[in-house]
Amino acid sequence: MNSYPSRLLEEAVTEFSRLPGIGRKTALRLVLYLLRQPVEDAERFGNAVTALRKGINYCKACNNICEGERCNICNDPRRDQSQICIVEDIRDVMAIENTGQYRGVYHVLGGIISPMDGIGPNQLKLEQLPDRIEKNAVKEVIMALSTTMEGDTTVFYISRKLRPLDVLITTIARGIAIGGELEYADEITLGRSIINRTPYEHTLAK
Amino acid sequence: MNSYPSRLLEEAVTEFSRLPGIGRKTALRLVLYLLRQPVEDAERFGNAVTALRKGINYCKACNNICEGERCNICNDPRRDQSQICIVEDIRDVMAIENTGQYRGVYHVLGGIISPMDGIGPNQLKLEQLPDRIEKNAVKEVIMALSTTMEGDTTVFYISRKLRPLDVLITTIARGIAIGGELEYADEITLGRSIINRTPYEHTLAK
Repeated sequence: MNSYPSRLLEEAVTEFSRLPGIGRKTALRLVLYLLRQPVEDAERFGNAVTALRKGINYCKACNNICEGERCNICNDPRRDQSQICIVEDIRDVMAIENTGQYRGVYHVLGGIISPMDGIGPNQLKLEQLPDRIEKNAVKEVIMALSTTMEGDTTVFYISRKLRPLDVLITTIARGIAIGGELEYADEITLGRSIINRTPYEHTLAK
Repeated sequence: MNSYPSRLLEEAVTEFSRLPGIGRKTALRLVLYLLRQPVEDAERFGNAVTALRKGINYCKACNNICEGERCNICNDPRRDQSQICIVEDIRDVMAIENTGQYRGVYHVLGGIISPMDGIGPNQLKLEQLPDRIEKNAVKEVIMALSTTMEGDTTVFYISRKLRPLDVLITTIARGIAIGGELEYADEITLGRSIINRTPYEHTLAK
């Protein structure tokens, strides 16, 4: 498809097709949908994107998204600053926040080490982490990364980097998902969940 | 997911999730991608959407997309104005143009009759068609609609409407699989089906 009836249409399709997972056919479908909407709706869409990129900063402390200098979580006096949960990106912060089970603060890496994608340790937001741990007398660093080779590599790298500091490093529990069928679990997960079994009382405590 | 770290983020996600086939999780993924791009890129994206909706008109003659009063195809003196190809939407115009097999002009309906979706004949851009046929001494009207029940219903409706006029009504050849969507047909099949169009009566004979 190359004979677009309008340059504006082609430009909009090109912009949409830059997004991950969106090809030119899907982009055209989305653009034609926007064309059918009232002018105000299309304008609101365009403005939301522009305002987003201009208005959003990254928290100076934890690299989470925010609109000022520091994010809502770092600014919240009720959050425990001595506990830092390390996550890959903002979606993980949102997912953990939705559990309502965590009252510490975060550190958003903005990626994980992935040689295949050309992402090394230097691309991660890590340089301020040791400083932050010392200044805030952080007691525990919780690794909440994906259980993939990339995630494990990143956990290994960070744990080596933090070894000189007097801080407990933990990882979120690996095991069988709640509601998961035992017989369908993979052997490695099942094996790990037997080794890392927890006292029955702990699973009851909410 | 509801605890967005920023209002701007939430607004952008809401706008993206209005698009067809995009849920809130996908919208968040797209928005976070845009956030990682340079400011200029995000701005160009936003501006492309706004400019699109404001700058694009519909051709006064054929309802195709254009930036002025009439579209490039209607304005092209080399196109045969006595041949009108009726299509559902702009993607179909683009698909047929890409075959390079058609030198007439188009008439874009902006939809097809679909009682399930509440689209009746009055929602289609049809009112000027008989006038246009008479004024331009149109000799042939080619129906290039999807071979679905909705497409067939629309062809039937239009052919009844045009019966009083002295114009040959043809349909593109059913080389395209019955039940197939026009926009996904390959260019060779689609091109062949325009060359091998058949008188409408022939398609009624089973």
